[in-house]
Amino acid sequence: MSLITVERKILEKNDEIANINREKFRFNGMFTMNLVSSPGSGKTSLIEQTINVLKHKMKIAVIEGDVQTNLDAQRIDALGVPVVQIVTNGSCHLDAMLVRDAYQKLVNIDINLLFIENVGNLVCPAAYDLGEDMKVVIISTTEGDDKPLKYPAIFHNSRVLLINKIDLLPYLKCNIDTIINNAHSINPSLKIFEVSCSTREGIDEWCNYLLSRF
Amino acid sequence: MSLITVERKILEKNDEIANINREKFRFNGMFTMNLVSSPGSGKTSLIEQTINVLKHKMKIAVIEGDVQTNLDAQRIDALGVPVVQIVTNGSCHLDAMLVRDAYQKLVNIDINLLFIENVGNLVCPAAYDLGEDMKVVIISTTEGDDKPLKYPAIFHNSRVLLINKIDLLPYLKCNIDTIINNAHSINPSLKIFEVSCSTREGIDEWCNYLLSRF
Repeated sequence: MSLITVERKILEKNDEIANINREKFRFNGMFTMNLVSSPGSGKTSLIEQTINVLKHKMKIAVIEGDVQTNLDAQRIDALGVPVVQIVTNGSCHLDAMLVRDAYQKLVNIDINLLFIENVGNLVCPAAYDLGEDMKVVIISTTEGDDKPLKYPAIFHNSRVLLINKIDLLPYLKCNIDTIINNAHSINPSLKIFEVSCSTREGIDEWCNYLLSRF
Repeated sequence: MSLITVERKILEKNDEIANINREKFRFNGMFTMNLVSSPGSGKTSLIEQTINVLKHKMKIAVIEGDVQTNLDAQRIDALGVPVVQIVTNGSCHLDAMLVRDAYQKLVNIDINLLFIENVGNLVCPAAYDLGEDMKVVIISTTEGDDKPLKYPAIFHNSRVLLINKIDLLPYLKCNIDTIINNAHSINPSLKIFEVSCSTREGIDEWCNYLLSRF
């Protein structure tokens, strides 16, 4: 069996289970978002800020994915929101099987909005459907404005781009218009929010967008 | 053939070619560094700053790895240094075969120091020996201080850690002592440099370390 055959079989099996996940999530009345970014772009901080704004308006739960540690799950747990940690033990992305198994621990909880925080990686998470309703890609202004061109798959496959850490723009050479133009050159329909999880700038606009989906 | 068998065979084949690469690099009098970081931590900027300091003292060449684009190779080429771009077309890491083939284009050039800039990813590059003399991991202060705990393999497998973007520390919650303690808890012998590719702070110490190896 060639490597390409093995890879195709893995992705086919993944997509089959992802479709079952998606049916289950929708049947249980959940909207599900798969959050993808580099390490340290602010996925967990964004979820924390979103929970702070929306926790009395909708029922949120989180599945956390990390190569090691449950540090992110501890941060979400501190906010009183149901959370399950997946530790991938070396794998650079979540897959539909890991999410299916993690969701078993949430299945009896009433949830409107499920965040799945992927492993910090802009490459492989783009190829794996987890059963989400949409992928959301996050980049921070500190990463430079060329990232959509260098990692196009995740920008192509996402519905929303959040540009985080805009509070740091005065101290960087990063040009936010270049990020936006580069992202739209890959995916013209990408919905873009500019936010800062430190100053909370833009967080209300993002939360209003989430609310508008319900 | 199981997936684990396939993975083991891929890594075995990779290591075999990596050892041949290493022999060839050493035979040709080169010291070779494999630079690993998240997207946007400053690998290319670090190489640029290093070239600016050392280009009259040693012969430097660069192999650039990216999922897409040759933007990084263009930046190195502008400095008048030999550079070869590898485009992985979706793969999240370089491997020894890609580096072997790229090196063919440099084989007739006199080189003392070869930088191999890996794909921006803290996970999979940790597992792939390219034939380098040492791995160097770079994180930026903007990524937060928990990264060594969350991505331990690359910190375990590297000889040097560069903490970049220290000029941004006044605007961040990041604690640099926590990064250092976390990194040393994974790898007590890790040599650490604190640098800023924007202000050039710490760059001379890093370059003196490189010079001391020759």
